[in-house]
Amino acid sequence: MSQEITLVEVALRDGSHVIRHQYTKEKVIEVTKGLNEAKVPYIEVSHGDGIGGSSIQYGFSKDSDIELIRAAKENSPFSKIACLLLPGVGTLDDLKEAREAGADMVRIATHVTEADISAEHIKFAKNELGMEVVGFLMMAHMASPEVLLEQAKLMESYGADVVYCTDSAGALLPSEVKERIELLVANLNCKVGFHAHNNLGLAIGNTIAAVEAGASFVDGSARSMGAGAGNAQTEVLVAVLDKMNYQTGVDLFKIMDVAQDIIAPLLPEPVIIDNDSLILGYAGVYSSFRLFAQRAGKKYNVDSRSILMELGKIGVVGGQEDMVMDIAAQLSKRQE
Amino acid sequence: MSQEITLVEVALRDGSHVIRHQYTKEKVIEVTKGLNEAKVPYIEVSHGDGIGGSSIQYGFSKDSDIELIRAAKENSPFSKIACLLLPGVGTLDDLKEAREAGADMVRIATHVTEADISAEHIKFAKNELGMEVVGFLMMAHMASPEVLLEQAKLMESYGADVVYCTDSAGALLPSEVKERIELLVANLNCKVGFHAHNNLGLAIGNTIAAVEAGASFVDGSARSMGAGAGNAQTEVLVAVLDKMNYQTGVDLFKIMDVAQDIIAPLLPEPVIIDNDSLILGYAGVYSSFRLFAQRAGKKYNVDSRSILMELGKIGVVGGQEDMVMDIAAQLSKRQE
Repeated sequence: MSQEITLVEVALRDGSHVIRHQYTKEKVIEVTKGLNEAKVPYIEVSHGDGIGGSSIQYGFSKDSDIELIRAAKENSPFSKIACLLLPGVGTLDDLKEAREAGADMVRIATHVTEADISAEHIKFAKNELGMEVVGFLMMAHMASPEVLLEQAKLMESYGADVVYCTDSAGALLPSEVKERIELLVANLNCKVGFHAHNNLGLAIGNTIAAVEAGASFVDGSARSMGAGAGNAQTEVLVAVLDKMNYQTGVDLFKIMDVAQDIIAPLLPEPVIIDNDSLILGYAGVYSSFRLFAQRAGKKYNVDSRSILMELGKIGVVGGQEDMVMDIAAQLSKRQE
Repeated sequence: MSQEITLVEVALRDGSHVIRHQYTKEKVIEVTKGLNEAKVPYIEVSHGDGIGGSSIQYGFSKDSDIELIRAAKENSPFSKIACLLLPGVGTLDDLKEAREAGADMVRIATHVTEADISAEHIKFAKNELGMEVVGFLMMAHMASPEVLLEQAKLMESYGADVVYCTDSAGALLPSEVKERIELLVANLNCKVGFHAHNNLGLAIGNTIAAVEAGASFVDGSARSMGAGAGNAQTEVLVAVLDKMNYQTGVDLFKIMDVAQDIIAPLLPEPVIIDNDSLILGYAGVYSSFRLFAQRAGKKYNVDSRSILMELGKIGVVGGQEDMVMDIAAQLSKRQE
């Protein structure tokens, strides 16, 4: 029962969404120094949508990914630096630059059913750049455990050292996490990770369910500084894993200090579960649909939450936002 | 799998701590009307420390318990009204007045090892006043499952219709909740309830563990409006229980509206897990010790969190606050 769990702190990546990608080099250095002192094994540093994400579509970064990664690396003798890359958003050139700036690990992220588009990036990172490589299967609630496994096997076959079940919408229940992680652990040779969001108040509960099911990598963000309802709150997760006799190697009091003294003042407002986050987790829909649903709801006089629930049932994915008006129109007819 | 779960909303009682017991009749009416419309089965209305709690020691209420209970009852054709009573704080006379003002249910609360002091109050409420009666065993993490059961059996023998496992410090893990609730359910004839706090980020996770283990009464507070890190967030709990196919009868969209439109504006600040709450849950210590530990820590130059951890190991209970200085002095010596 004294199994080691490797923690990846994502406040400097998922948390980038919270401040609209306005991290400065100075802030990244301050946070990194604190996390390094708390002995956090990995610190992810990137635009919220991964390296190369700075754009009109995803929002421009204040300081560039590469500068931030370099600054983190230079101030992090203990913690390794990770970055995120979404194929189609970031390029192989971006990855090479990130590696040269000091990134030790890259997490290649795709929709849960699209692992095949990660092949080139995983191979390049592993074979050409000599990086540690994680496959990051997002919106994991949208695939059955069997499909998730099949996709994870693809990532493993490309060379991933770890494959993550990523609950991007915070839509999974502990029993569903357990089922998925157990299947991955039983059928993969590589390590298995879990990334939570707190839309249903289950970020910590799901993460410990994942660990009990055999996951050895888990993500957290100090003060829950991540998109929407945030992630598993790192300092809370460290305390809970310690109570359960897992070893993270993280200094609890120091990570608490980082959370309260450095991260909390960065937040425009405390990260909580508001109705917008809750309905996205409940419906299991990606956050990009929220504004569309609100507009369509106004136009057709339908509760936008009902629209999101319908979209969740259909299982829409990013890019299908044009369906929202049709759904709203149908619901409006049904109301009459 | 379509088991019925009875929800008790505690924002008008546990949430009273958050606003230092300054609920007005008008606010209680507004909240009650919303909860009633959302079809919440029970609404608990009391001073944070129970009826009769208004005092120098616990803080004075703005409007009296009795007025607030009456106002809630008059505006609640559907939801039943509950009140909390701690023997030693509230009296039989207080309870009689609460009953006359319209309270349908009383929850008699004691420390987990002191069920015997609830005998008179439970019997009076049940036999003289004809109320529904709940036995509320607080700080449940401080007793073994076997001791908890023994104490619960006492409350059942006095006439309790429901006995609660109350995680006052938010210190239990899901596995510990499961073990306790399963034992209670297997050995009691009365119903079993669970009350969570979110100090370890497990309020929702623990509550669903309790339900899966057979609990049929659960507490929530809209927007987590409860002491410290708050309770299981009601609107989130309703969504999660619905996803798991349990029946609460609560209208999800309406309870979401109450949380966002009525409760959120009452909060002086959003309820989150800060370091003070986290360390209390991690140490398993009652919140009254926090200020004492901070003072002693300053005096002896010891981290107050280390003091709280020591107090947790010893298993201090309310009334033993005089031990804090000694512990701090010992830790200070050890540091040298």
